[in-house]
Amino acid sequence: MKAEIVNVGDEILLGQIVNTNATFLSKALVSAGIEPKWITVLADNREAILNGLKIALKRADVVVVTGGLGPTHDDLTKYAAAEFFQSPLKINPDIYEGLKRRFEERGRPMPEVNRNQAEVPTKATILSNPIGTAPGLLFEKDGKLCFILPGVPREMERMTRESVLPILARRFEKKRTCLRFKTLRTTGIFESKLMEVLGDVQKIEQVAKVAFLPHFYGVDVRLTVKSNSDSECEERLKKAEALVRARVERYIYGVDEDTLEQKVAELLFQTKQTVAVAESCTGGLLSHKLTNVPGSSDYFDRAVISYSNRSKIENLGVSPHTLEQFGAVSEETAREMAEGVRKMAGTNWGLSTTGIAGPGGGTAEKPVGLVYIGLSGEEESTVRRFIFTTDRLANKERAAYAALEILRRRLLKFI
Amino acid sequence: MKAEIVNVGDEILLGQIVNTNATFLSKALVSAGIEPKWITVLADNREAILNGLKIALKRADVVVVTGGLGPTHDDLTKYAAAEFFQSPLKINPDIYEGLKRRFEERGRPMPEVNRNQAEVPTKATILSNPIGTAPGLLFEKDGKLCFILPGVPREMERMTRESVLPILARRFEKKRTCLRFKTLRTTGIFESKLMEVLGDVQKIEQVAKVAFLPHFYGVDVRLTVKSNSDSECEERLKKAEALVRARVERYIYGVDEDTLEQKVAELLFQTKQTVAVAESCTGGLLSHKLTNVPGSSDYFDRAVISYSNRSKIENLGVSPHTLEQFGAVSEETAREMAEGVRKMAGTNWGLSTTGIAGPGGGTAEKPVGLVYIGLSGEEESTVRRFIFTTDRLANKERAAYAALEILRRRLLKFI
Repeated sequence: MKAEIVNVGDEILLGQIVNTNATFLSKALVSAGIEPKWITVLADNREAILNGLKIALKRADVVVVTGGLGPTHDDLTKYAAAEFFQSPLKINPDIYEGLKRRFEERGRPMPEVNRNQAEVPTKATILSNPIGTAPGLLFEKDGKLCFILPGVPREMERMTRESVLPILARRFEKKRTCLRFKTLRTTGIFESKLMEVLGDVQKIEQVAKVAFLPHFYGVDVRLTVKSNSDSECEERLKKAEALVRARVERYIYGVDEDTLEQKVAELLFQTKQTVAVAESCTGGLLSHKLTNVPGSSDYFDRAVISYSNRSKIENLGVSPHTLEQFGAVSEETAREMAEGVRKMAGTNWGLSTTGIAGPGGGTAEKPVGLVYIGLSGEEESTVRRFIFTTDRLANKERAAYAALEILRRRLLKFI
Repeated sequence: MKAEIVNVGDEILLGQIVNTNATFLSKALVSAGIEPKWITVLADNREAILNGLKIALKRADVVVVTGGLGPTHDDLTKYAAAEFFQSPLKINPDIYEGLKRRFEERGRPMPEVNRNQAEVPTKATILSNPIGTAPGLLFEKDGKLCFILPGVPREMERMTRESVLPILARRFEKKRTCLRFKTLRTTGIFESKLMEVLGDVQKIEQVAKVAFLPHFYGVDVRLTVKSNSDSECEERLKKAEALVRARVERYIYGVDEDTLEQKVAELLFQTKQTVAVAESCTGGLLSHKLTNVPGSSDYFDRAVISYSNRSKIENLGVSPHTLEQFGAVSEETAREMAEGVRKMAGTNWGLSTTGIAGPGGGTAEKPVGLVYIGLSGEEESTVRRFIFTTDRLANKERAAYAALEILRRRLLKFI
């Protein structure tokens, strides 16, 4: 069972809005066991819609169209669909009365322009729209289904849940496939290195499809399983996850929507430990992430964002001698920053960053992207050195992620 | 001139990510005077890509494809394009050396899997990727152009600006229509109030289309003009902007892609003034924004993120008496935080935030969303009180924006 999502609307084509309707419909169709294979955005134009419908109904079993059902002159979807399915339009008295009542309830007469919303193709099944004026339509042709829904997200979402999904469930009960995903989120390892450590991906692929999704802060490994049986689906997904975890467990900080800061927070909550932060090159981003988690005041005591050397000396107790001899971006300074903030705050951990975020300020010896991350604990302090990129914002993000990951691994006693 | 955007990626089809690449490309193409008429999302599948290219190159003059250029086994776009354009693949020694160097600079050998990224179709023009490993490609056929770019947004965006748009400008100078937008960005004023202050929008609409785009941190006013003449386009846009500015100038912090922190930074750079920050509820976000601007060490000295009361006393000199009598979330504490950090750092300005970010921690007297923002200068200190929402992350964002806007208006002597 293949599906195509068709979104009609110039505002999407011009980049004025992001096509979140497609994202919602994708998830809805996947949950119904029907795979979206194409998403197409079309202009508010009769010919474009006709051609789009032609292509979609040729290649897909289920087509879901959104948008262009309103009452104005550039709402053309219904007319194009009527033409495509060769179905004349006729005023539907029930819809007409419903519209009139809707406006009366709001204490005003129905504008003439809305009258045409009661006009529907005679061959279509009407899908009621409980919160808007444009009804949805369902056409059937050669065993294929074509749903047409309004583009207003709230109306489209509700009608998908209340009409489209139940109809699909009834119609395709036997043909539907179970499609399940799980995303294993890693950080601190490059995509290519991750693939190397994972080894023979083909072995995992016998059980589940494997995709690597690199973000600049880490690589997600997405497992996808497709099967006719729900139980087999679950079982294979579990097996694939176990295969991946057996090899790269230490790099996996969470699954699906988990964030690294959440996982660090959970570890700190569980063990009732606390952290203080001394940031230079990350400029507040590390603290921002750590305080995004509700309840973070339980583990986060304070941070000093020490951009100036004076602040490193005054607020963190970094020795002027260290700054002079090794510079602000050095292993020694990172160590003293982490130790200083831990001591001052009286926390279990002190975490520090110092580096050259860029784009300026680099030298041959200390290039843009050079970052030291210090972690001071009760037993010892460690500093790690990184070379990131030449992009300021990416460097801040990467350094903040690296710092969180170092703390996570230490809390798990991986390092 | 008609364009089609083709995004390759199962993760979009499955609803795992929102297709923001299409939105970026739509805007970019429109800015180049070429109207996107179709957006198509295709599966990571050879046949799907081949068919998608066939349809796109039949109906559009310019096709921009993104995604599927990485080094892994499900990156198939390059191979499908080579097949479609009947162009054999060959290792490009320059790209190969560049890749090797890229890895060497990071102190590690190039993984074998990356080798195939140096393999390019011989008929394609190479578009360099300054921040990633996958080069872009440009194919030409029957006077039509087909750009192929990586799916990583940062890489795709940079290559669009640096390669795609200049090439389009050279090739299609005469065929394009002028479609111009300008976004006037406001903050610190509600949409309804903004419309009220703007008054008769119809008057502006005689010159340009006006749209209000509310974000949770402010309202953008977008002006759109379409014309066959570049000069008329520019003139009408200027006129519309002047009409808006005449009424709401003080709320407009910038245009188009400007950020509030950039504008604040410009004012600080120009006047050689400095700022230090004391954050509580914003948890580092305000400092993060202030340090996102290259060269920010010229004006940003330090920040203290004082989550604990002890930190407010120790690092900022807030009086224990104030904390006890008025609480950490109070006008008095906000004032002492701003004054304390300014004094300690010896900067021109001290900016502070204290509030209840939520979701927990609210009381009847001090609800979630209550935020005080303090600004201390050489002459006086002021504190403003806000009530934002119940959402933690939105509260952090809104409070950080409000703090930046207060500083901006003070620097401009509006307040």
